[in-house]
Amino acid sequence: MKDVHAMVPDHGNLLLARVGIEGIRKPLVVRRPDRGVTLTATFSLAVDLPAERKGSDLSRNAELLAEEIDWPDTRPVASLEEACRTIARVLLERHPYATRSEVRASAAYFLPRAIAPGRESLEDYLLLAGARGERTPEGLRIRRSIGAEAVGMTACPCAMESARGLLAKEYPALASAALAGLPIVSHNQRNRTRLTFDLDGGAEIEADRIVEAIEAAQSSPTYAILKRGDEAQLVVDAHRRPRFVEDVARELLASLPARFPTLPDDCGVALETRSEESIHKYDVIASHGTTMGALRRA
Amino acid sequence: MKDVHAMVPDHGNLLLARVGIEGIRKPLVVRRPDRGVTLTATFSLAVDLPAERKGSDLSRNAELLAEEIDWPDTRPVASLEEACRTIARVLLERHPYATRSEVRASAAYFLPRAIAPGRESLEDYLLLAGARGERTPEGLRIRRSIGAEAVGMTACPCAMESARGLLAKEYPALASAALAGLPIVSHNQRNRTRLTFDLDGGAEIEADRIVEAIEAAQSSPTYAILKRGDEAQLVVDAHRRPRFVEDVARELLASLPARFPTLPDDCGVALETRSEESIHKYDVIASHGTTMGALRRA
Amino acid sequence: MKDVHAMVPDHGNLLLARVGIEGIRKPLVVRRPDRGVTLTATFSLAVDLPAERKGSDLSRNAELLAEEIDWPDTRPVASLEEACRTIARVLLERHPYATRSEVRASAAYFLPRAIAPGRESLEDYLLLAGARGERTPEGLRIRRSIGAEAVGMTACPCAMESARGLLAKEYPALASAALAGLPIVSHNQRNRTRLTFDLDGGAEIEADRIVEAIEAAQSSPTYAILKRGDEAQLVVDAHRRPRFVEDVARELLASLPARFPTLPDDCGVALETRSEESIHKYDVIASHGTTMGALRRA
Amino acid sequence: MKDVHAMVPDHGNLLLARVGIEGIRKPLVVRRPDRGVTLTATFSLAVDLPAERKGSDLSRNAELLAEEIDWPDTRPVASLEEACRTIARVLLERHPYATRSEVRASAAYFLPRAIAPGRESLEDYLLLAGARGERTPEGLRIRRSIGAEAVGMTACPCAMESARGLLAKEYPALASAALAGLPIVSHNQRNRTRLTFDLDGGAEIEADRIVEAIEAAQSSPTYAILKRGDEAQLVVDAHRRPRFVEDVARELLASLPARFPTLPDDCGVALETRSEESIHKYDVIASHGTTMGALRRA
Repeated sequence: MKDVHAMVPDHGNLLLARVGIEGIRKPLVVRRPDRGVTLTATFSLAVDLPAERKGSDLSRNAELLAEEIDWPDTRPVASLEEACRTIARVLLERHPYATRSEVRASAAYFLPRAIAPGRESLEDYLLLAGARGERTPEGLRIRRSIGAEAVGMTACPCAMESARGLLAKEYPALASAALAGLPIVSHNQRNRTRLTFDLDGGAEIEADRIVEAIEAAQSSPTYAILKRGDEAQLVVDAHRRPRFVEDVARELLASLPARFPTLPDDCGVALETRSEESIHKYDVIASHGTTMGALRRA
Repeated sequence: MKDVHAMVPDHGNLLLARVGIEGIRKPLVVRRPDRGVTLTATFSLAVDLPAERKGSDLSRNAELLAEEIDWPDTRPVASLEEACRTIARVLLERHPYATRSEVRASAAYFLPRAIAPGRESLEDYLLLAGARGERTPEGLRIRRSIGAEAVGMTACPCAMESARGLLAKEYPALASAALAGLPIVSHNQRNRTRLTFDLDGGAEIEADRIVEAIEAAQSSPTYAILKRGDEAQLVVDAHRRPRFVEDVARELLASLPARFPTLPDDCGVALETRSEESIHKYDVIASHGTTMGALRRA
Repeated sequence: MKDVHAMVPDHGNLLLARVGIEGIRKPLVVRRPDRGVTLTATFSLAVDLPAERKGSDLSRNAELLAEEIDWPDTRPVASLEEACRTIARVLLERHPYATRSEVRASAAYFLPRAIAPGRESLEDYLLLAGARGERTPEGLRIRRSIGAEAVGMTACPCAMESARGLLAKEYPALASAALAGLPIVSHNQRNRTRLTFDLDGGAEIEADRIVEAIEAAQSSPTYAILKRGDEAQLVVDAHRRPRFVEDVARELLASLPARFPTLPDDCGVALETRSEESIHKYDVIASHGTTMGALRRA
Repeated sequence: MKDVHAMVPDHGNLLLARVGIEGIRKPLVVRRPDRGVTLTATFSLAVDLPAERKGSDLSRNAELLAEEIDWPDTRPVASLEEACRTIARVLLERHPYATRSEVRASAAYFLPRAIAPGRESLEDYLLLAGARGERTPEGLRIRRSIGAEAVGMTACPCAMESARGLLAKEYPALASAALAGLPIVSHNQRNRTRLTFDLDGGAEIEADRIVEAIEAAQSSPTYAILKRGDEAQLVVDAHRRPRFVEDVARELLASLPARFPTLPDDCGVALETRSEESIHKYDVIASHGTTMGALRRA
């Protein structure tokens, strides 16, 4: 049978940066100290393609994915990003003509949370991982990325100040010392924040710590189970920590040096935070990319 | 050439209720008193298929759509639901073996809105339309549906009361007569409400009136342009009209007899309202189906 | 604290058919004979709301979900539809004012598949389940639904006949007996078919059997791992079983009496099949609803 | 009223690269030689935020969008990318603290197409545009991007060769000279290709030309209206131009120097092509970024 992929291209001798498969879903068991956690992950895998080769052997991508992570019960992985690292390495082994590989994966995952004792439930987050491999004179170099997305709440500091001004005209009593610190109405909404670290070498980052960092930067985390008193507490707390997306972004970035002291200076950091504004039909976002070193020097 | 569609089916002599095309996009010009409004509409068209026929002549669906609404500049329609009515009729003409036809369409559309003079901008809504045709002994019978979806805001009445209770312990002054009526912090969020009318015969419903009815039932409409004072006003107003999804649904349904006095009693009404809760990661919804007659008797 | 939900509604004394929560994600462990299978499921839960009550106690929905299915490792369920049945029952217990409950759930799930020995991998499907509860004079009545969606391939029988005609003019040799049965080029594409059963009482349906029924009705199942020879085999096989969506629908419906002989006659059957046509930018669909009894009599 | 946005940030003195609004929808009238074309466009607008300022004045974003493009009947624009260029400029005027601005827009748009005389209909494409502004010592510098996405068909060259091999065993007659060039069955599917140009200065690119370039690189364009003979022709033609995503990418890139001779060498080119494989449940993609200069030298 003719190996069509290995033929010379008909349509121009051009290198292509990425050829691969996207949106392939797989179950995955991640080993935790105490147990295995099963994820339903969605993967994308790609390699580059040199100018002199017609096609990338894409059947190898699904094949190596099956070999590395199918049959999760007998083949658990250390983490989603470790699975990505392995896949990025094997991609370069199975595509000998390629010089770069790229793997991305995402999966819903769950952490126990409670606003108060007896309210514990599993909250859902998004786990993000990736790896980029490169064939260098010194051998394969693999960079991993690990991130998470958490949904929480933001309350707007600006609308709160404006509403305070507006209400003060109608209720002069609001100015009394007895009401100092009273939280004032504002708009609040779902905030969706995504934080990813991109790093060389062996440093480890626990996804749960990333979620904690995000939730600490929002006006409040959100919870599936809220009894009446809990709702009141969450709402009051959130209005005592009003946050623009700018504030969420900066508070989160500023917290990283203390939260992740062992990450190397060249560890990349990418963040996007999105508030699904209750007063508008569109979203408000802030995003930024930097390094742990730059954050430490800031 | 063999007419494969007209052959006897190989796989069981079964009537099929709906065979058609989905997700075909078309531009459309709707004639308004003063001008034409161009919509980018997405259509679905289907007919039933009798047991003795292998296939539905689906190429006719795209063909009749092109004949009826392509070239919008020279072929404007009275409204999206009138276009659906025409298409439902022509579907039964072009599929002589069919006894029922069904057309659905949706399109973004825009209305000018302003929270205050000088803040006018175009807000986006979703226009919904449909038609169902039936071949009866008396000839074709076509029912149309016309609806809209509007995004606004809801503020929660329950969390407001709970927060009032919680804050009253810390701020006894809140109980003073001087602060009666002060809006108290609550959670608020995007609310997405969809209302559709389903009717026989010739009654007309203006989509703009449906949007107005929806926006009047939410805690507040939302706006693209809000200067600081506007934000304060919107937030205070919304907290003075706190609404569960149940309240939005009932207020909207209860308003319909007065807003649409000429609609016949057998006009169907379907509603879904969804609050994208800021305190939870999931949505809260209320939905109901009824008739104008039942609403008038309630 | 005031119980706002239990108050009389401000906005019209109207029953609402469905008030609930949508889009709450949970991990779930389904007990299988040999092992537990972990799913990431998305749930919707609703009850009706009587005219005289302002709000539905929605916090109970998330609470009972946590009680019934959180902590999957210690609290496995028999199946997704059994979890739905339990939740539909508990919803009516926790909302004493409600007369109906409704639960829907969906989750990606995986089955091993191989086009040939040594090519085994996990293919992904969608598992669908639901339950509707009703408070009757004889006690609670719960109907369950169980379904699945599978992606496969359809090749068009009509384009194949037309292409045969066209090619016969250029290649008269095609008419020779030596080429009888040669599969001819056609358009083929992803076909996404969903089949759901709706039933009272205790009959069991295995989701894997639903997937098998769907895959047998498409021109071909699809596979993650296909080496060159496998691709050829799959393509040839699919072109030897060309199928309109009408054919997929009818072949699937016609196969159900033999595949599911023990299902009662009043068991509802709903089907939708969608071909993401390669020759058009829009989809082609067929859908139908019937009962096992009607299929047995057809 | 306090200007909260202008305050010093509470949460770390960090520059943020992008703060803005996303997903705001607007109608837009594009002036064409003969008429106005109305688009429903979705916009994202952002600027950077210096370390010493708490918030970006986001209300200005919606405000300037309303001023520049609302009321499309009286305020037509030359093109979507010209609208983006204007908005990118005005963003820097209205956010005097910002040094960079970024605008992205997309909109469905329609072109007349016919596989044969008398089959003309409007096919839908996606128009993509953007602009990035930068405050430099020499004044504002604005780069625009302009692109399009077109859905067509790819037929796989590899499966065709493999199927030829497989069928040749069963039908030795296939090897006869009388059948040379007979198109053989393969898998085919929707292909979605996106091509974007990124350029400084004043060069113009017509979106219709981008769509033509994409459609010429696929195995075949697709059409809404196909009578039986048309389907056969399209299927046969597509199988005579089998294309991997790699082929689509290279053929498209290789065609650009001849199609766009006046584009400057530093004009950026970005491409992604995705085949929604009929034989797999996942997509296959190729993507690449380069410049017109590099393509000319290749």
